Amino acid sequence: MGAVTADGQILSRIERPTEPQRGPAAVLATLEQVLRDLLASYPGVIAVGVACAGQIHPRTGAVIYAPNLAWRDVPLAEHLTRALDVRIVVENDVRAAAWGEFRFGAGAGARSLLAVFVGTGVGSGAVLDGALWRGAANGAGEIGHTQVVWDGLPCPCGQRGCLEQYVSGSGFQRRLRHALTEGVRTRLAAVTEGEPGRLTAAMVQAAAEVGDGFARGIRDEAERYLALAVANYVTLVNPDALVLGGGVIETVPRLFDAVAAGVPRLTTILARSLRIERARLGDGSGVIGAAALAAPSA
Amino acid sequence: MGAVTADGQILSRIERPTEPQRGPAAVLATLEQVLRDLLASYPGVIAVGVACAGQIHPRTGAVIYAPNLAWRDVPLAEHLTRALDVRIVVENDVRAAAWGEFRFGAGAGARSLLAVFVGTGVGSGAVLDGALWRGAANGAGEIGHTQVVWDGLPCPCGQRGCLEQYVSGSGFQRRLRHALTEGVRTRLAAVTEGEPGRLTAAMVQAAAEVGDGFARGIRDEAERYLALAVANYVTLVNPDALVLGGGVIETVPRLFDAVAAGVPRLTTILARSLRIERARLGDGSGVIGAAALAAPSA
Repeated sequence: MGAVTADGQILSRIERPTEPQRGPAAVLATLEQVLRDLLASYPGVIAVGVACAGQIHPRTGAVIYAPNLAWRDVPLAEHLTRALDVRIVVENDVRAAAWGEFRFGAGAGARSLLAVFVGTGVGSGAVLDGALWRGAANGAGEIGHTQVVWDGLPCPCGQRGCLEQYVSGSGFQRRLRHALTEGVRTRLAAVTEGEPGRLTAAMVQAAAEVGDGFARGIRDEAERYLALAVANYVTLVNPDALVLGGGVIETVPRLFDAVAAGVPRLTTILARSLRIERARLGDGSGVIGAAALAAPSA
Repeated sequence: MGAVTADGQILSRIERPTEPQRGPAAVLATLEQVLRDLLASYPGVIAVGVACAGQIHPRTGAVIYAPNLAWRDVPLAEHLTRALDVRIVVENDVRAAAWGEFRFGAGAGARSLLAVFVGTGVGSGAVLDGALWRGAANGAGEIGHTQVVWDGLPCPCGQRGCLEQYVSGSGFQRRLRHALTEGVRTRLAAVTEGEPGRLTAAMVQAAAEVGDGFARGIRDEAERYLALAVANYVTLVNPDALVLGGGVIETVPRLFDAVAAGVPRLTTILARSLRIERARLGDGSGVIGAAALAAPSA
């Protein structure tokens, strides 16, 4: 949580563990309490923006489904609006982050922007002609579930060949888990002490650098398919700026380079007018974007 | 050319060969003359919309590049505006067709629509929240050049694995040409009298039906990759309607069926609210859409 100024600066920042196993009511109570404290410290606050991973109802601000929290139909905006005397806006976290980068980060000056974030999963947000595009059912931008390989790696979503299986923290872990059951030899077995859930993008990068075949293979595929999926997105939407961010992009500099080199090559003439940038707001983009969405006139 | 009513009906229709080898000036003169005749017959015409294959300047209506006509920087709108005392609007033909289907065809009632047309090439137009989306550089919607296979079939655009190589009239011809040079045995050699440029989608369909292995192979890949590319488009944009049209879709009914079955399967929850329809305006969609764009208040 942060207090954000009208020009997108975070004045102070508070972090609390969500502990979703406590259930929605307890999580909402914690959220409300920390928010009360922050509002008491900053009496000038005119609106509160909440960035939440999951599917958000575009009008009511209810959380329709948030897999990370195991929430279904939780009236987040309604609860906070009742509890606190201030305007509340809830937005999907990736879309909020895209808006943050558009308003105050790497996208400043653009009219139309695609922001792609690679972390545990892969998501994106699109700003088209100055407005956030949410989709007809508030579900736009799921680039992590575009299919980059026909009949490729299975994805928990039920499809095969989703980008997220080739280039995300969770995808890397799943690939290692599968490789270990297949008896593939890789130093990542020792690095993770045989627990694929400990694998990080930094470990993949480090092992690839010292010539580990498995690590090099999955890193190369990550570069290839991220460039391909992002190029296809650009070919369809034709934005004037493309922003890449998220923990995996920050950890593995080659990924940004692969996209920056691959997208102009894979998109022909459209890319001539395209600016490709690293995200600039780090993990503050969601807080800043949600605040800017809640107080658009500021 | 057609006279179009405010409710999207074509009253009369005139066709003339373009004969681009005569050069832009002669083509423009023919266009102007036929247009004068039509305007004389319909004195109530308030605006003229022109749908043109190629890249159109969004403000000036100049043809920046039209490969089929071999035009570069031809001031089409300016020329017609000078010659005729009526409002002229020039739009890319596929985008005009998408707008036609949105306003008066299969997309009626939708707020956001993707229209994909498969013919000699593959193109698309997007209507987002009631407005045509053209892209930052007027280049949005090039689904034919999204890449469905990494390092796949070479495309004249310079890339590899473009959808258009797997599912278009020109793509089928290129595949047959390559197959014949490789000595592949297929009845399509006899059907086309050894000239791949005579191949039509109907011939592919007919040969596949009687068990020709080559024809069946390219038809199956056409179904597979069209469904995949369209599903990825839907996953990124999340429209409420998807319209498929064009000569190849009309000739090969299985293609529509493959997309109608594949997209819901390949897009998970987003597709629940998606309507998938065949285009309804046939080859009139461009004329009707261009007219509707030229006289939006009608």
